[in-house]
Amino acid sequence: MTDTLTRDAALALDATDPLAPLRAQFDIPDALIYLDGNSLGVLPRATAARVQQVVTQEWGQGLIGSWNSAGWIALPQRVGDKIARLMGAGAGELVCADSTSVNLFKVLSAALSITQADAPQRRVILSERSNFPTDLYVAQAIARERGFTLELADADELPARLNAEVAVLMLTHVNYRTGRMHDMAALSAAAHAAGALTIWDLAHSAGAVPVALSRDGADFAIGCGYKYLNGGPGAPAFVWAHPRHADRFWQPLAGWMGHAAPFEFSTGYRPAPGISRYLCGTPAVLAMAALECGVDTVLAADRLGGMAALRAKSLALTRLFAQQVMSTCGGHGLALVSPADDAQRGSQVCLARAEGAYAIIQALIARGVVGDFRAGDGAAMPDILRFGFTPLYTRYVDAWDAAEHLRQVLAGAEWQRPEFNRRHAVT
Amino acid sequence: MTDTLTRDAALALDATDPLAPLRAQFDIPDALIYLDGNSLGVLPRATAARVQQVVTQEWGQGLIGSWNSAGWIALPQRVGDKIARLMGAGAGELVCADSTSVNLFKVLSAALSITQADAPQRRVILSERSNFPTDLYVAQAIARERGFTLELADADELPARLNAEVAVLMLTHVNYRTGRMHDMAALSAAAHAAGALTIWDLAHSAGAVPVALSRDGADFAIGCGYKYLNGGPGAPAFVWAHPRHADRFWQPLAGWMGHAAPFEFSTGYRPAPGISRYLCGTPAVLAMAALECGVDTVLAADRLGGMAALRAKSLALTRLFAQQVMSTCGGHGLALVSPADDAQRGSQVCLARAEGAYAIIQALIARGVVGDFRAGDGAAMPDILRFGFTPLYTRYVDAWDAAEHLRQVLAGAEWQRPEFNRRHAVT
Repeated sequence: MTDTLTRDAALALDATDPLAPLRAQFDIPDALIYLDGNSLGVLPRATAARVQQVVTQEWGQGLIGSWNSAGWIALPQRVGDKIARLMGAGAGELVCADSTSVNLFKVLSAALSITQADAPQRRVILSERSNFPTDLYVAQAIARERGFTLELADADELPARLNAEVAVLMLTHVNYRTGRMHDMAALSAAAHAAGALTIWDLAHSAGAVPVALSRDGADFAIGCGYKYLNGGPGAPAFVWAHPRHADRFWQPLAGWMGHAAPFEFSTGYRPAPGISRYLCGTPAVLAMAALECGVDTVLAADRLGGMAALRAKSLALTRLFAQQVMSTCGGHGLALVSPADDAQRGSQVCLARAEGAYAIIQALIARGVVGDFRAGDGAAMPDILRFGFTPLYTRYVDAWDAAEHLRQVLAGAEWQRPEFNRRHAVT
Repeated sequence: MTDTLTRDAALALDATDPLAPLRAQFDIPDALIYLDGNSLGVLPRATAARVQQVVTQEWGQGLIGSWNSAGWIALPQRVGDKIARLMGAGAGELVCADSTSVNLFKVLSAALSITQADAPQRRVILSERSNFPTDLYVAQAIARERGFTLELADADELPARLNAEVAVLMLTHVNYRTGRMHDMAALSAAAHAAGALTIWDLAHSAGAVPVALSRDGADFAIGCGYKYLNGGPGAPAFVWAHPRHADRFWQPLAGWMGHAAPFEFSTGYRPAPGISRYLCGTPAVLAMAALECGVDTVLAADRLGGMAALRAKSLALTRLFAQQVMSTCGGHGLALVSPADDAQRGSQVCLARAEGAYAIIQALIARGVVGDFRAGDGAAMPDILRFGFTPLYTRYVDAWDAAEHLRQVLAGAEWQRPEFNRRHAVT
């Protein structure tokens, strides 16, 4: 990893990039190098007008009639079908609803119910030690409630831990801290061979890497709308259940929108067939309209090679940035945490440093280079500098410039200034 | 109930109504008489600009930094504190999050956990037979999961059914079908005397009738943002737990936003103190910004007498409408389902008719009078014509005109036209 590139060479890559026109879909602040689309995607140009239309026309003028006339009632399925195309899932198999955490609760409940019916001796939910905390918290709570045990392992240990005790293997496909991408097909096959079900959290995959849920043996999946899908802050999430499981059990958040006939107002719960039973309350119309605009920005890549082309560019961007950083910032104590191997890397580059990770990120933000900081817990999990590369709108020259800014921040000890060491509420 | 009023008398009531200026807070389509604010509140004038600001400035320009700089991270508490003022709850006791159905699941889980610790022999969740279906569905699912029984009774039977088996009395304060308002203080006292906890769904109360959760002995409460709070379609809901309960148990949707320190990214769940543990996933920022504008329209009544003044006008509106209908539509088979007694009536008037309720509503909508239809299940629960009166923006003359339109629809058998008998997906 000692190849370096000139800035002109990076510009030349942009000049010949077939995906370059996709950037025009977004409103990105001038001069900002935004490498945090894995936390919050940027604003699509279409969103403001669409949201305004929903607010002033559909809500303001159409009022309650818009549930029918503007198709509000079908938004969870309509937007879900669009996301399904990016996930290797069929139409009618995926819905938008609630948050990632809430959807995880639904599918984990369903998976445990299947286990209790088919293999009641299995009492373990297996996950990765550095999985995103909300996944671990939701699993802890449900394990406590239902008499299961949550066991955590490092990524490499997972296959060996798949034994006759394991009910569910619950993983985030691309790790939020390390950027490491699991082999969904291999791990799902191993889980199935061991008699366990799989749940895949696609928060850092949806819109960033190709996903083929059915082909790769997933049983359940959930994902996030506000990262690479550009759905806006706190956008609704999505949930998928393999059709062989979707009808088997009630999910415990048995709200009226998951009823077979919500507008019968019947007293008894009768779950809708298929994935629609994973809906719960009234759809968040404004937020779902914004999410649809975001999903459309990813689907716009279809005519330019689709997810395969986006993936190729994402890998080129992360490779370029990692190589530039490691070759120009040598001696500054940075360690590359994200995998160098393309096959194992999601769409982000993660760097560890024993000291100052938070302040370095703040110094970069002050220069207009937005990455983020993720706290570790000491030696096993160091503090992380995290840089997400959304291939829809990130240019090669952005990756090159970001690496150069990082070099300057480190070379000049800029990060040691007091103002970069004051903590904010949200990091 | 045979008093009638002239249209001029209704206009005179508007001319001297001290709350009349509050209507200017809203964008209401010309000539529309909107009596469906108990299903979806109208658009506040401030909302479009505020949502646009959140989209284009806070998200578009501020991006991830807006979690700090625009205060996104505190939205659930900030909007929650505003709603708390309308609910007789203290600051820091109520948060906005998720949907009503999801929040019901949280508080019902917590209430059952308290029961299992303090009175494990109690195995019954008691509710009203005609409670809103989503409440019954969520309760059915949780009862099934945790080995409780959901028992349903008619409103008048509830006190007698509070026995040593009952763990939780779960009621909607104002019934969605009948408009009947329970006496929260009396039923809570009866429940506590019998050793049961109370959960109050405030969907049809928040912003419509005075609520005093702490004074009236509620243990838990939830409510809806998109009805009388004017938060927009699918707006976030809210959740309150009495401070003596809020810290006692994890709620099962143990997402990262309910963690004591979400940005430590620690592996183990440690619930936030107080009501903040009832948060789950990332806040829905766009939707919560719209909700805040809606809540502000209700708080704007503070300088004009607040909820007491709104309640007085609401009662006057519903009384006027019911009296006009019953005196001018006599002989057309309408029965008044909502209570004639002010003390028992929420902010709606409900009428039953053996035949044609759906078509009558459609005929009224065609005339620009928007109420809604709620299906019954035969004799015990007849089909309902429902008319909600939001005192913030409904005029006395609207109530008078609506009654006159109804008279004409019935007198001319207008509702029998085929186009009014075709069912829509959402009723």
